[in-house]
Amino acid sequence: MPKKLTNMLENVPSDIEIAQAATPMPIQELATEVGILDEELELYGKSKAKVSLNVRDRLKDQPNGKYIVVTAITPTPLGEGKTTTTVGLSQALGAHLNKKVFTCVRQPSMGPTFSIKGGAAGGGYSQIIPMEEFNLHLTGDIHAISIANNLLAAAIDTRMFHESQQSDKALYKRLVPVKKGERKFSAVMIKRLEKLGINKTDPAELTEEEISKFVRLDLDPDTITWRRVVDVNDRLMRGITIGTGPKEKGFTRETGFDITVASEIMAILALAQDLGDMRDRLGRMVVGLSRAGEPVTADDLGVGGALTVLMKEAIKPTLMQTLEGTPAFIHAGPFANIAHGNSSIVADQLALKLVGKDGYVVTEAGFGADIGMEKFFNIKCRYSGLVPNCVVLVATVRALKTHGGGPKVSPGKPLDPAYTEENLELLEAGMSNLIKHIENARMFGCPVVVGVNKFHTDTDAEIDLIREKAMEAGAHAAVLSNHWARGGDGAANLAQAVVDACEAESNFEFLYDLDLSIKEKIEIICQKMYNAAGVEYSEKAEEQIATYTANGFDKLPMCMAKTHLSISHDPSLKGAPSGFTVPIREIRASVGAGFLYPLLGTMSTMPGYPTRPAYYDIDLDVETGQITGLF
Amino acid sequence: MPKKLTNMLENVPSDIEIAQAATPMPIQELATEVGILDEELELYGKSKAKVSLNVRDRLKDQPNGKYIVVTAITPTPLGEGKTTTTVGLSQALGAHLNKKVFTCVRQPSMGPTFSIKGGAAGGGYSQIIPMEEFNLHLTGDIHAISIANNLLAAAIDTRMFHESQQSDKALYKRLVPVKKGERKFSAVMIKRLEKLGINKTDPAELTEEEISKFVRLDLDPDTITWRRVVDVNDRLMRGITIGTGPKEKGFTRETGFDITVASEIMAILALAQDLGDMRDRLGRMVVGLSRAGEPVTADDLGVGGALTVLMKEAIKPTLMQTLEGTPAFIHAGPFANIAHGNSSIVADQLALKLVGKDGYVVTEAGFGADIGMEKFFNIKCRYSGLVPNCVVLVATVRALKTHGGGPKVSPGKPLDPAYTEENLELLEAGMSNLIKHIENARMFGCPVVVGVNKFHTDTDAEIDLIREKAMEAGAHAAVLSNHWARGGDGAANLAQAVVDACEAESNFEFLYDLDLSIKEKIEIICQKMYNAAGVEYSEKAEEQIATYTANGFDKLPMCMAKTHLSISHDPSLKGAPSGFTVPIREIRASVGAGFLYPLLGTMSTMPGYPTRPAYYDIDLDVETGQITGLF
Repeated sequence: MPKKLTNMLENVPSDIEIAQAATPMPIQELATEVGILDEELELYGKSKAKVSLNVRDRLKDQPNGKYIVVTAITPTPLGEGKTTTTVGLSQALGAHLNKKVFTCVRQPSMGPTFSIKGGAAGGGYSQIIPMEEFNLHLTGDIHAISIANNLLAAAIDTRMFHESQQSDKALYKRLVPVKKGERKFSAVMIKRLEKLGINKTDPAELTEEEISKFVRLDLDPDTITWRRVVDVNDRLMRGITIGTGPKEKGFTRETGFDITVASEIMAILALAQDLGDMRDRLGRMVVGLSRAGEPVTADDLGVGGALTVLMKEAIKPTLMQTLEGTPAFIHAGPFANIAHGNSSIVADQLALKLVGKDGYVVTEAGFGADIGMEKFFNIKCRYSGLVPNCVVLVATVRALKTHGGGPKVSPGKPLDPAYTEENLELLEAGMSNLIKHIENARMFGCPVVVGVNKFHTDTDAEIDLIREKAMEAGAHAAVLSNHWARGGDGAANLAQAVVDACEAESNFEFLYDLDLSIKEKIEIICQKMYNAAGVEYSEKAEEQIATYTANGFDKLPMCMAKTHLSISHDPSLKGAPSGFTVPIREIRASVGAGFLYPLLGTMSTMPGYPTRPAYYDIDLDVETGQITGLF
Repeated sequence: MPKKLTNMLENVPSDIEIAQAATPMPIQELATEVGILDEELELYGKSKAKVSLNVRDRLKDQPNGKYIVVTAITPTPLGEGKTTTTVGLSQALGAHLNKKVFTCVRQPSMGPTFSIKGGAAGGGYSQIIPMEEFNLHLTGDIHAISIANNLLAAAIDTRMFHESQQSDKALYKRLVPVKKGERKFSAVMIKRLEKLGINKTDPAELTEEEISKFVRLDLDPDTITWRRVVDVNDRLMRGITIGTGPKEKGFTRETGFDITVASEIMAILALAQDLGDMRDRLGRMVVGLSRAGEPVTADDLGVGGALTVLMKEAIKPTLMQTLEGTPAFIHAGPFANIAHGNSSIVADQLALKLVGKDGYVVTEAGFGADIGMEKFFNIKCRYSGLVPNCVVLVATVRALKTHGGGPKVSPGKPLDPAYTEENLELLEAGMSNLIKHIENARMFGCPVVVGVNKFHTDTDAEIDLIREKAMEAGAHAAVLSNHWARGGDGAANLAQAVVDACEAESNFEFLYDLDLSIKEKIEIICQKMYNAAGVEYSEKAEEQIATYTANGFDKLPMCMAKTHLSISHDPSLKGAPSGFTVPIREIRASVGAGFLYPLLGTMSTMPGYPTRPAYYDIDLDVETGQITGLF
């Protein structure tokens, strides 16, 4: 039954007004309702709680629920409402069809919250509440990533600095000091010795040559890929020179900042199975190469354990609720271009156990289906072992019209009348994009339900056209959804279609085998998913392929770093382009997270603020403590 | 009655072993016990909770408890156990003398936790538990400060960048855009217009000249004092060049990073009375001067409201407990040299109301009494209006011997036998330091209890000598305290002495009036507290005094930024030096926090990691989730 946390109004108010008008259930009550035990719950205030991974072990014999991924056609820069659909669909399943349901979404970066985009908790009557807590610090996971990322950065530069100032002997004396009359390697040093093939545990026994190998990471500054992060849009930090202080003895280096969600540690949080797996991944992150070309890891720097300690609470998903009182996990939020753009594996696993056999877990994948869904299948599902039952493909009249050749859509600018008036011709011309995404999803053996996210200017004829073309392309169903204005009730038909699709046969399979070569994997994705005619590699990419292959990193999945505004690598190619050649500029490695990411263009990993960011409107009513101006 | 949270062992184990062996009470239970209502409490897991400032309003008619500040003689670089004494004394008052008691301490920076210093939750059997949670993220306040500080930094540089690229007209169009057919100033813009003397609210009515004044903050890059922060010891970030990225069009600038606890926002958190006061202070923080010499504030940049939103949870103190189950507030932790080094006013206020008339609040002031206590009285008590009842001055045989001319004491190095064997001569020679601090405390009209923090090598004769000299110098009492090894029981005598002292007459007064000139205030502190012969101002300082006076900042209290290793400005001058002249290199302004800080030397606001930081030993037992190697 729908919970009356709020009264729906005909004229849909702003997101924050809707969210603030609702009265969330005490989160402890919701936790009990969904079967989480008190000892598995850590409250963070009244409306958020972290949930222990022990839930998964306790319920290990419980069959999983149905696993639904929400993705979208190639979006406009405004986004087409994936999160809103994810939440609305969940509200419909839970509060209207009376199914056990869990929503799993990412934690958003705070940078864009203060910029133009505003909140990311859904919208209208399909939101996760309290939206302010969702959009701001949440339970501190992104903060933990920032400090862990930056501790590693400090460890890199400090070590390079110390190596530049000290002899082998001095370094060794300091790295392995006499303490209480004893000299001992720490556990993480033993790891490094093993990696170097030095099978000794007594510091007195190392030869001079072994000492030198042990103490000198000898990082080549030009190969360092580890950057610092901050969860703010700070464009002037994209490129910086460090070490210009008077005490740093001229030890300068060119580097820069990314936004925190672009940190490899975020990708690890999303992919780690448990504390042990997270410890291993954090320790094996490669930060650069030695001058001899050997990968240097966080554990070589002695800091993998400390990073794990900083991340030990972050691995627990945060429980919140939707506007209709259904449960949601908010957990992890890696970049969808340079990383895989999906919320965490552990949250999905916990949710699937908690809903059980007859329940449903709705999880969201970032950007369009060519990116988020492909990576959901080939990376996230591969690492988790989970098998999806249904793909929900969100489509909008607006985005389809851009694919038909409609005028440019830009954030903060009024929409052209082409988008607000009926135009079946433009719409039909854009349908190729929808069709290609349906075919792509079906390539993985998964039934596809198209959810048309309704805007108030859409006409019945436009909606009908989308539904007709979707069914022709092989969708299991294609349904209008009006969850933004009507909450779960507006998504009831979509929910019923999803329930039906989950009963349909699913023959899930990956697009490629990990055993293939780097190039083979890239080419399969480009040809099958993007419809490319071919792939071209830069000289740099060719070199990197050789290096990665030599280091054994070629067995990792590929995480394509490309624009989300086209199925191709070129944002100007709308619809379902073909005949193009994909250029691979460069290939980077997230060895800890467990993927290589070929760059198909210039990916910005640090946004900037416009002249008038949203923060001009954001303030606090100091009497009530309520936030104003967040939207 | 002492609570049996742990069993004390004769051979005192490591801090983390003691802390992990204890079973904390559920924090909700403790909260109820001390009179905090459920609706005033927000749990953060099982052992930490944030407490609403509403407690203060609810109990406004309740008389305050006794207010005790713990300070120390001039310490060695190892520290002399102020936090340990603060906790031990509280345990004694609460669990042994059966008084209502609250401990108030700062949240430590995480940077040093991973360096050499290790934890900061007290030590031995006088600790706040769980020490891992205390030392790591706590409830996220420092993270909130980091991101707020860096959002402001991004706002500064982004604005300078946009101003450099756009005409007045373009800036105005973007700053005050047409939205839904309307052009409106946001509330924070109206503030700026008022500051500029432009009494208009319709954007259409501004003249060209007014538009130019409004849109151009015209920050002079050489005057920008706002730096970025990170809660990591990242020495290579002390000086950096930003804007070197290819998209930043050559807009580079020299700046750097401080450790987060050095942020002015941390000082504001510690001094703000409530949300409204915090909003005002954050908005009026001065980040630099315009080319015309006018102060530019966070509100001029439009970001004061957003900063407040980021800090709205941080203003609530965090409730934890000691090893003997007495309550503690952990809240704020500004640097003790460039800022005032005291935990928050609001935590002390809440605690004083919660313990009530017959209760005791033990709060700690950073570094030695010449810094922490002086700032506690002249800055913190001035802003809070609270009147202290008693000073506890922590002394150690070790530190007194250094003041008598003992050999240098360095972290990580073994102690010279002068410190571990009886040496009454050396000790007596150092007594001048203790005497001067006693006299200083008495200058404020407060009774002083000297607490000798016992080390196992101290002899009875040494302790007796300290007690004798302290009494001669006018201490109300001088007591040995063995709380490290024995918990509250070991501090029972100290607690009794404190109870007695709180009954003694106290005639608290400030050292200086705010109405005095900047120089007069500086000179009073230098002469009365430090025993300086005179003060010398650099040319720069003279200029700054003129500027601050012209801007009306001369009525703020002075927050002396000086070494903690001497009562003077010179760390090599031990004991109670005299005849020296204090050089004022420079005077900086924390206008939002509400003080000026004269620099009496080079203050490092960003520590570095040694060759082998503590993180080499820190790891996680991935089966149990327990942290190892944190000390």
